[in-house]
Amino acid sequence: VGDDCAVLGGAGRGRFRLLKVDAVVEGVHFLPGTDPGLIGRKAVARPLSDIAAMGGVPSEALVTLGLPDDREVDDVKRLYAGLREMAASCGARVVGGETVRTPGPMFLSVALSGWVERGRVARRSGGRPGHLLYVTGTLGGSIAGRHLTFQPRLREARWLVGGHRIAAMMDLSDGLGADLPRLAAASGAGFEIDRPAIPVSPGRDVRGAICDGEDYELLFAVSPRTGRAVEAGWPLAFPGVRLTRIGRLVAPGEGERAFPEKGYDHFA
Amino acid sequence: VGDDCAVLGGAGRGRFRLLKVDAVVEGVHFLPGTDPGLIGRKAVARPLSDIAAMGGVPSEALVTLGLPDDREVDDVKRLYAGLREMAASCGARVVGGETVRTPGPMFLSVALSGWVERGRVARRSGGRPGHLLYVTGTLGGSIAGRHLTFQPRLREARWLVGGHRIAAMMDLSDGLGADLPRLAAASGAGFEIDRPAIPVSPGRDVRGAICDGEDYELLFAVSPRTGRAVEAGWPLAFPGVRLTRIGRLVAPGEGERAFPEKGYDHFA
Repeated sequence: VGDDCAVLGGAGRGRFRLLKVDAVVEGVHFLPGTDPGLIGRKAVARPLSDIAAMGGVPSEALVTLGLPDDREVDDVKRLYAGLREMAASCGARVVGGETVRTPGPMFLSVALSGWVERGRVARRSGGRPGHLLYVTGTLGGSIAGRHLTFQPRLREARWLVGGHRIAAMMDLSDGLGADLPRLAAASGAGFEIDRPAIPVSPGRDVRGAICDGEDYELLFAVSPRTGRAVEAGWPLAFPGVRLTRIGRLVAPGEGERAFPEKGYDHFA
Repeated sequence: VGDDCAVLGGAGRGRFRLLKVDAVVEGVHFLPGTDPGLIGRKAVARPLSDIAAMGGVPSEALVTLGLPDDREVDDVKRLYAGLREMAASCGARVVGGETVRTPGPMFLSVALSGWVERGRVARRSGGRPGHLLYVTGTLGGSIAGRHLTFQPRLREARWLVGGHRIAAMMDLSDGLGADLPRLAAASGAGFEIDRPAIPVSPGRDVRGAICDGEDYELLFAVSPRTGRAVEAGWPLAFPGVRLTRIGRLVAPGEGERAFPEKGYDHFA
């Protein structure tokens, strides 16, 4: 508890089981009229991103669909097609699905299991003062479309945990401004951010990159030495994906504990 | 797929993993104003009953709560308390929970993992013509309250699969009239029912026992020889729980394939 997935025993020697359940709700995580295939895609991509955040490998997905009476069978088929395709592209299999009636908005709950080698599991709590902070991709503006079409960073995460000691990692689902303080707190550290370094998505500003959320990028902390190795290897492994050092963890009493940009949000 | 849970590998030698996801929705599975503790209880008791139906042992539960804005924090606490207590009473642990906002009715999705010995797993498909059909408890009238307070038949199911060859088993969630035809079809068989033998809950009739649903009792098929052994041992093992032989599986072309009582329902 406190990590992106539940980390469980019982997977045999040398492995943890990972388990995640997540739900998307019409009117909150997607709007009425959204392509059903993209709804199904997002519903499973979110927990896939959580498995990635632990450095894990996804295996099976189970789906519960809360369906209002007015939906077409064809919409449900397209929803499942999108869901299956996303799962399959990440090596996961949809092993069951169930529909419940709902008088309210449609919802879609996905339980996703996976596994990770015990020596590779990346939690939020392993960061230490002096560790460097990195993010993948660019941040902000996801609501314009990327929140429906993002690709969970499974390959990148497996590369990271496979060859490097990743001290702490999580995926950015609520935005850097909400999620980095969680990683820092779990690691018993403060943080310093180099704001001009934050990789901002086209059309957005730093404040959007901090506050928008739904980036589904990786945030991780590593020792300076590991950081050098990761920076050296990354461009060859993932030439199309940005990797940016955005700051570092500091002693608990120092640096920042929260983002003032998040505070401004409350009065916006 | 087709059984009460997904049956998966990867649990080490000699075991299957079991995985189930289930959701309850306000207005469908419970009414507004229901004690939050009982809502939480039911949300996890349903998948616990599915684990029981496979002959399995539950291990971990993950919860997603879809929460309307108008709910009190105290209600959420009571809901989780009821859920945790039910899970703990069955030896399961709640390892994570997440809340998503919903503009519609409250819903609660629970992903439950478990395991079962490979030699003991009870599927729906193992019944054969000539096998005897049994149900636990009494059927019908669950909506009067028992749908919120039922105890998943985990102990009974473990006793059944531990000492006997249970050819086919499932839990009665949609009612005997809907569920027995599923078990028979999965087993490639027809069925004959001794209607006067059906154990009817107080205040209900045979039609209610067939059609009401939400009984969460076990339905299973065994060879006549195993049936004798089960009948002999049951009263000592579970003196407070009825066990009733209600009929048998027959050759696919013979007997019944559906319940006419269910058909009447459509015109009610």
